[in-house]
Amino acid sequence: MTPEQAKEALMKNDAFSKWLDIRIEKVDSGYCKLQYTIRPEMLNGFGSVHGGILFSASDSALAFACNSHGILSVAMEVSISYTRPAFEGQVLTVEAQEINLGKTTGLYDIKTYNEEGKLICVFKGTVYRTGKEIT
Amino acid sequence: MTPEQAKEALMKNDAFSKWLDIRIEKVDSGYCKLQYTIRPEMLNGFGSVHGGILFSASDSALAFACNSHGILSVAMEVSISYTRPAFEGQVLTVEAQEINLGKTTGLYDIKTYNEEGKLICVFKGTVYRTGKEIT
Amino acid sequence: MTPEQAKEALMKNDAFSKWLDIRIEKVDSGYCKLQYTIRPEMLNGFGSVHGGILFSASDSALAFACNSHGILSVAMEVSISYTRPAFEGQVLTVEAQEINLGKTTGLYDIKTYNEEGKLICVFKGTVYRTGKEIT
Amino acid sequence: MTPEQAKEALMKNDAFSKWLDIRIEKVDSGYCKLQYTIRPEMLNGFGSVHGGILFSASDSALAFACNSHGILSVAMEVSISYTRPAFEGQVLTVEAQEINLGKTTGLYDIKTYNEEGKLICVFKGTVYRTGKEIT
Repeated sequence: MTPEQAKEALMKNDAFSKWLDIRIEKVDSGYCKLQYTIRPEMLNGFGSVHGGILFSASDSALAFACNSHGILSVAMEVSISYTRPAFEGQVLTVEAQEINLGKTTGLYDIKTYNEEGKLICVFKGTVYRTGKEIT
Repeated sequence: MTPEQAKEALMKNDAFSKWLDIRIEKVDSGYCKLQYTIRPEMLNGFGSVHGGILFSASDSALAFACNSHGILSVAMEVSISYTRPAFEGQVLTVEAQEINLGKTTGLYDIKTYNEEGKLICVFKGTVYRTGKEIT
Repeated sequence: MTPEQAKEALMKNDAFSKWLDIRIEKVDSGYCKLQYTIRPEMLNGFGSVHGGILFSASDSALAFACNSHGILSVAMEVSISYTRPAFEGQVLTVEAQEINLGKTTGLYDIKTYNEEGKLICVFKGTVYRTGKEIT
Repeated sequence: MTPEQAKEALMKNDAFSKWLDIRIEKVDSGYCKLQYTIRPEMLNGFGSVHGGILFSASDSALAFACNSHGILSVAMEVSISYTRPAFEGQVLTVEAQEINLGKTTGLYDIKTYNEEGKLICVFKGTVYRTGKEIT
């Protein structure tokens, strides 16, 4: 199974990634780059994007990157640091990179940037590799 | 401003918390308890709830707890650990508790449970207290 | 193997825990409480205890708590939040509690307090359970 | 104050960094690279380096990188992921890089490698910038 096929298999039923309307620009072995646009229903009570949206798009990028090897993998532990707010109408770019791939776990770094290339948040995710093949 | 008033001020414009359809059961000084129901559009490609949804509801609980003192506060750094998957139709309960309140930062522990009281995820959040009053 | 026996097996060769001079007050299933005293060589360039010492003592408490089941377990991912500095001569108390125990992983909350019961740091640790018995 | 001077000011009284016997290879604006050797007293009960040592050396690298701007800064929140064990006699290299520098906080990525260039751990640190100048 290629990274592209794994992505198709996951994306097909990923209802929340569809709601986020993420556009996957590229998937490769241990890698994913995607974009999405901040819509009004993604805002929090302060008028900026809800932290949960920034997290969710990063989490989706993680899912595509860590499942690119064809082995079903799930996030186990994540930390996210927010560096700058983002606002309605902005197009954000999310890039996930594999830092380490072990037999049972993997470690990923996911960064989100705005259109000016300014860092919005940094996400570090540890995944558990179930050993099952994605179908 | 009471915790209840701060919650009203935040919730009024929190579009994403409304989309999540969270029901706030209780807010108090440094505390928040809320519930929500997992809907089909909240699922990931594996048929369980998307990690971003679990994060988002925890993040909303954090926002209500840390803003309960009437001082505008925003999440700066969060870590989340997933312990059990959750599925469509389940009603999840999220409880946020203040662990420490400093002058410029605060620390919160947020736990999510399913209907059987089983732990779904643990969220630890550090917030920055801006010093501005919520209006 | 009892929690007490597992502790003895680990502590016997744990050179750095000996250097820290931690005193284990109690171990039980998924639980550990210990104390240590801040010595001059544990300070950083600001005259307070080095963050690495606070981390290390928490990490030792984690090791005793997560290995109490007799199954060799190692820390995989940890986050620590510092809430208050601590100084030379203070006796700190560290308490580790099991939040979740899965087949291959476990989740622990470890808190450090000073003599006045003030919170010094909060440590959240995910361990990998190797499946091997401790001997 | 140059990064080099800031490092000297911090290192002078940093008793625990001296115990670790870290050798600072380079400091620059928002950057630090150091090395240290694993000694017998740094081992845990499993014969590998204690997680607290890996953390401590990373934390020291963080301190030199974040204080390089001459503004007193302290770690507030850290997460560390362990990817590979390390053993007695190994020389580890730690590299700290600034990911974001805000007015009151900064974000740093610190990686530790063994002599073969294999990744031992990844440390993500958020610091609080006190605004006071280092003297």
